[in-house]
Amino acid sequence: MYARRMVKLTKQIDDSVLVTPGAKSNLRKRATNADDIFDDREAAEEATKENAKAIDALQDALWAERKRALLVILQGIDTSGKDGTVRAVFNRCGPLGVQVTPFGKPSDEELAHDFLWRIHMATPKKGVIGVFNRSQYEDVLVVKVRNLAPAAVVEQRYEQINAFEAHLNDTGTTVLKFMLNISRDEQRERLQARLDDAEKNWKFNAADLEDRKLWDDYQKAYEVALDRCSTAHAPWRVVPADRKWQRNAIIAATVRKALEDLAPQYPKPDWKPGDFKIE
Amino acid sequence: MYARRMVKLTKQIDDSVLVTPGAKSNLRKRATNADDIFDDREAAEEATKENAKAIDALQDALWAERKRALLVILQGIDTSGKDGTVRAVFNRCGPLGVQVTPFGKPSDEELAHDFLWRIHMATPKKGVIGVFNRSQYEDVLVVKVRNLAPAAVVEQRYEQINAFEAHLNDTGTTVLKFMLNISRDEQRERLQARLDDAEKNWKFNAADLEDRKLWDDYQKAYEVALDRCSTAHAPWRVVPADRKWQRNAIIAATVRKALEDLAPQYPKPDWKPGDFKIE
Repeated sequence: MYARRMVKLTKQIDDSVLVTPGAKSNLRKRATNADDIFDDREAAEEATKENAKAIDALQDALWAERKRALLVILQGIDTSGKDGTVRAVFNRCGPLGVQVTPFGKPSDEELAHDFLWRIHMATPKKGVIGVFNRSQYEDVLVVKVRNLAPAAVVEQRYEQINAFEAHLNDTGTTVLKFMLNISRDEQRERLQARLDDAEKNWKFNAADLEDRKLWDDYQKAYEVALDRCSTAHAPWRVVPADRKWQRNAIIAATVRKALEDLAPQYPKPDWKPGDFKIE
Repeated sequence: MYARRMVKLTKQIDDSVLVTPGAKSNLRKRATNADDIFDDREAAEEATKENAKAIDALQDALWAERKRALLVILQGIDTSGKDGTVRAVFNRCGPLGVQVTPFGKPSDEELAHDFLWRIHMATPKKGVIGVFNRSQYEDVLVVKVRNLAPAAVVEQRYEQINAFEAHLNDTGTTVLKFMLNISRDEQRERLQARLDDAEKNWKFNAADLEDRKLWDDYQKAYEVALDRCSTAHAPWRVVPADRKWQRNAIIAATVRKALEDLAPQYPKPDWKPGDFKIE
């Protein structure tokens, strides 16, 4: 019963959020809320908790098996809720099996290497769930919008990213990519809250306002990345993220489904309990 | 009221578990349960949850402040409960602010460097809580017991570790060291459970039985490490760990107290909300 409900829901989610490989993402036409899928907030929050619990159990088997890894990439404009997603989906799992890597402005050392160097170093080892807060896509987003590299160099990166993700996929790492899609109005409210709410003041960064002025440029850059890097081996999902509880419900269900598809197995012992006597 | 109760409890815990710098640890005489401190399991578990919640809030401030770090070192013989401690104390905090590093057998690359190289690389950056599952102490424990390095080299390491930890402390990282102390009988039961309980089979490692045969040698090696490396800047705590709920309660209370002593502060904004208008 539960299984059938889940299959139906994850299909409904994917029909709505998946960027079909080869097709246009049509980012500008995509909804920033998922009211068509979720109308009951309480039920959605309950489902997220249930899925977080299942993710924890599946991660335990993933670790015991130690043959595959999962990489969850979270991209989105400032205030889109990347940190909040980590808390809602992965706190149940805890820091033992989940490793979060935030990618900020690259260091001199990182810039002295190719753009995928720091990314590759942070990929999860077998048995682990890695979460990227921002990722290799910054190199075709902020870098493109702010002209931090020649256009011809950026242009090559889409295929380089696709090749890199294909390599990860071929060598045992499943890649899930989520773009947290909020509206311009929702971002205004969230930035305003950082100004008005003393407890959120520390999160406010005046530079975010500069990025906000480039909203349309960022949306265009996202659209190109979604169009060109939603592949069969690592498709993009555009997650309506104006309502946090919908965002969490979508991502938790998708991560759970991906782990269930991997179906990690506890290794079978090659011994019998009677083989050992503990002194 | 709560504060007074906590102060009393953490003092009682420290009186019982702290290895006074300069004094003998008397490991063999230390209890492996804390029945003298905790008699009510339910209350202790409730306190652990409350402390885990407080640790989460304090970590948020630590991250916002981004000036100091906390390093929690968990040492203990096989089955002593290092992973379980991480779950009980740090899952509430989640993978966003806590970074767990397990130290196993060193790689060729790691062995090609001095023994503190891989340790230093894994220390938490400012704002983060780092948890070491095993640590630099393996180089004076397993290495000593199994003669993996000349005795004279091991002999130098105690002071090298003290100097390293003093450096961490001086440069903004508070170091908390916990030795999870279980009895030989309790280890037998936990190993046996890994043989008998199908869900725990994957955790069983025949090599652990070899280490168990060296129980006394390990206890002696631990005792020397505790005697020589419990310093004012990074004292050891020997945690009675036969009962998981007592172990968790002791460590959660101690970590919380350490963070409260750090008293991380949210940075004060150097602007007023009216300075900005969000378009």
